[in-house]
Amino acid sequence: MGERMPVEEHARFVRSLLAPLGARPSEVVALADALGRITASPVESPLDLPPFRNSQMDGFAVRAADVADAPVVLPISGEVAAAPGAPAALAAGTAVRIMTGAPVPDGADAVVPVEDTEPDGDGVRILRARAAGEYVREAGSDLAAGDDVLPAGVRLAPRHLAAAAASGLTRLLVRERVRVAVVSTGSELVAPGEPLGPGEIPDANGVALEAAVRAAGAVVVHAGRVRDDVDGLRAELDAAVAAGAELILTSGGISQGAYEVVRELLEPLGAWVGSVAMQPGGPQATAVYRGVPVIGFPGNPVSAQLSFALFVAPTLRAVAGLPPPRAERMPLAEPVRSIPGRRQYLRGRRTDDGRALPVGGPGSHLVAALAASDLLIVVPEAVEALDAGEPVDTVDL
Amino acid sequence: MGERMPVEEHARFVRSLLAPLGARPSEVVALADALGRITASPVESPLDLPPFRNSQMDGFAVRAADVADAPVVLPISGEVAAAPGAPAALAAGTAVRIMTGAPVPDGADAVVPVEDTEPDGDGVRILRARAAGEYVREAGSDLAAGDDVLPAGVRLAPRHLAAAAASGLTRLLVRERVRVAVVSTGSELVAPGEPLGPGEIPDANGVALEAAVRAAGAVVVHAGRVRDDVDGLRAELDAAVAAGAELILTSGGISQGAYEVVRELLEPLGAWVGSVAMQPGGPQATAVYRGVPVIGFPGNPVSAQLSFALFVAPTLRAVAGLPPPRAERMPLAEPVRSIPGRRQYLRGRRTDDGRALPVGGPGSHLVAALAASDLLIVVPEAVEALDAGEPVDTVDL
Repeated sequence: MGERMPVEEHARFVRSLLAPLGARPSEVVALADALGRITASPVESPLDLPPFRNSQMDGFAVRAADVADAPVVLPISGEVAAAPGAPAALAAGTAVRIMTGAPVPDGADAVVPVEDTEPDGDGVRILRARAAGEYVREAGSDLAAGDDVLPAGVRLAPRHLAAAAASGLTRLLVRERVRVAVVSTGSELVAPGEPLGPGEIPDANGVALEAAVRAAGAVVVHAGRVRDDVDGLRAELDAAVAAGAELILTSGGISQGAYEVVRELLEPLGAWVGSVAMQPGGPQATAVYRGVPVIGFPGNPVSAQLSFALFVAPTLRAVAGLPPPRAERMPLAEPVRSIPGRRQYLRGRRTDDGRALPVGGPGSHLVAALAASDLLIVVPEAVEALDAGEPVDTVDL
Repeated sequence: MGERMPVEEHARFVRSLLAPLGARPSEVVALADALGRITASPVESPLDLPPFRNSQMDGFAVRAADVADAPVVLPISGEVAAAPGAPAALAAGTAVRIMTGAPVPDGADAVVPVEDTEPDGDGVRILRARAAGEYVREAGSDLAAGDDVLPAGVRLAPRHLAAAAASGLTRLLVRERVRVAVVSTGSELVAPGEPLGPGEIPDANGVALEAAVRAAGAVVVHAGRVRDDVDGLRAELDAAVAAGAELILTSGGISQGAYEVVRELLEPLGAWVGSVAMQPGGPQATAVYRGVPVIGFPGNPVSAQLSFALFVAPTLRAVAGLPPPRAERMPLAEPVRSIPGRRQYLRGRRTDDGRALPVGGPGSHLVAALAASDLLIVVPEAVEALDAGEPVDTVDL
């Protein structure tokens, strides 16, 4: 099997294989479908924001000069609602009743809030002077037409869609999501829910790696499951390429056994299939198949999930504008032992008092224990044992 | 207008109106659609995990007693792959070649990893003794059939789906998402992208509140836009109820002006339409329409987004199992002024050195500035001014 490859070296190589995924093509999506997508270029507003001078309050539009000596009574010369239409200009010495958001008439330069007024016959008594500009929102005071309402590279949250819609936009240019194929291998696998014969197990990697791809902001364009059969695997990889996959993830078929289908198909094509100095997830593979990077994970669902999290998720999440998972240093809740020369990723739980509690032991078959965990506990290569209370690096699952 | 209602009191009342949403009905979804959903009940595994005793390594299945005096040469009596079928029992004094994950034959009680062996003619030389149980994964050692593989109330991540699929499950019982309707009101509103006449603006609240509902883990079952017309609004609310909405969000139509359609329709039915001691977002409304809670926001997109975040998102996110947004105390990067008696929610940005920098001023029409912000800066009711460097509470947008 040769030397085990250091974790960081494998991670670096996978990162370099996936680096081209960072140069995303663009696509146009409707605003209603844009939540969570990343803008591909700066977005110009075709409109002034606000588009016209409007009132910040319900009240009376006036000339500031006419109310300088308040209290003063002004005749009411009209009314403007937030509604279609342009109001007539304000006659000097009068007030116009105005609603929040309604266009301020030409000639008016201030709004007196209704709270600072009293009815007075057919007119209105203005109780308080207001300077020119008070309670008036000038056109373009938020953003001028032609300026960027959104920068490139922003992950679209509701507030970004609010600004885009307020600018009259209905579509946005966003980065395409990374198109990924997921292929499970193993003659022992059956679809979950099918009856199990002797020696058979449900394929957990299909559904779980597909979900992991989606959770990392990418899309699954092809998913398949093959027995330990080289022709079958080749057909799946060809189907993945035909579906436009930019990245193919396989599980199984890369260890030291006699029926290692990923190794058999891809090693003659130049794949690296070897062992990384980690547990779980020691067997790993990298290849390029018809121009598409292939990352091969071990078949064990725990190893496959962990390998995805360590080697593939960081690139996919960065491309999708998602933050890395929280990494923290915290004390161990229990002593642990580890295999020297391999980096252990123990599954664990954060205790109520902020310590890292191992869950379920180091075995890579403990998929229920993985589900019961919420973090990984990293035990470095050189460490054989750690006492309770010693600080460890953890990464949220 | 009467007294302004304290922010906490309004928040509490909205929370009580929305409390019934916490009692979710359940629905069955396929595993492939279950990512991010919440389990409605504990999930039993119908299988032992692993389902049968299997090998942890590629190597040789043996009787530990036969290799106790290693090195020792054993004849190879067979081979077991990870594939369908039950292996024959191990003959005493022999070894069976075995692959990772393959069923361990009856009679064998240990696996010797291939690294600890050498070929020897037709047999295998075992270089190292192994105790009974080594490198053997017992059936049910991760989880026994009938035990819970997932608890109730867990938000389904890929690792949970891995465990469910490994248990042979294809469907999960999850909580239904909260069904929400969003209705924009205002005669000045046109659909984004339509040409604007004088006095008209694009409706930003429709798309942005729909996105906010989805980002909070709920679903939009009805969306509409009405002019300031009571019959039109009634028709929209009836359509929302008919669509099964459990919560109706309106924007606009609740301030002091003459054309306040939400107020006009709902006040006679017992709605509270008033003013909360905050800025932006002072005007607020609560009602129950045909048994469905209605939360009325101001029409300004900044106020509407902020009101959603403060009053509605906490309940929806909690029901969906989403964490609350990060709240932090940090120093102000610039001095600010505020209106006494109202809680200010200034929009701001976290600077590289961890201070809160106000963005775009207090005006509630600054929707582009909201998009450029990543947090809210809370200025308490009693505060009129804060200096740069003073600590403030912030909440991530």
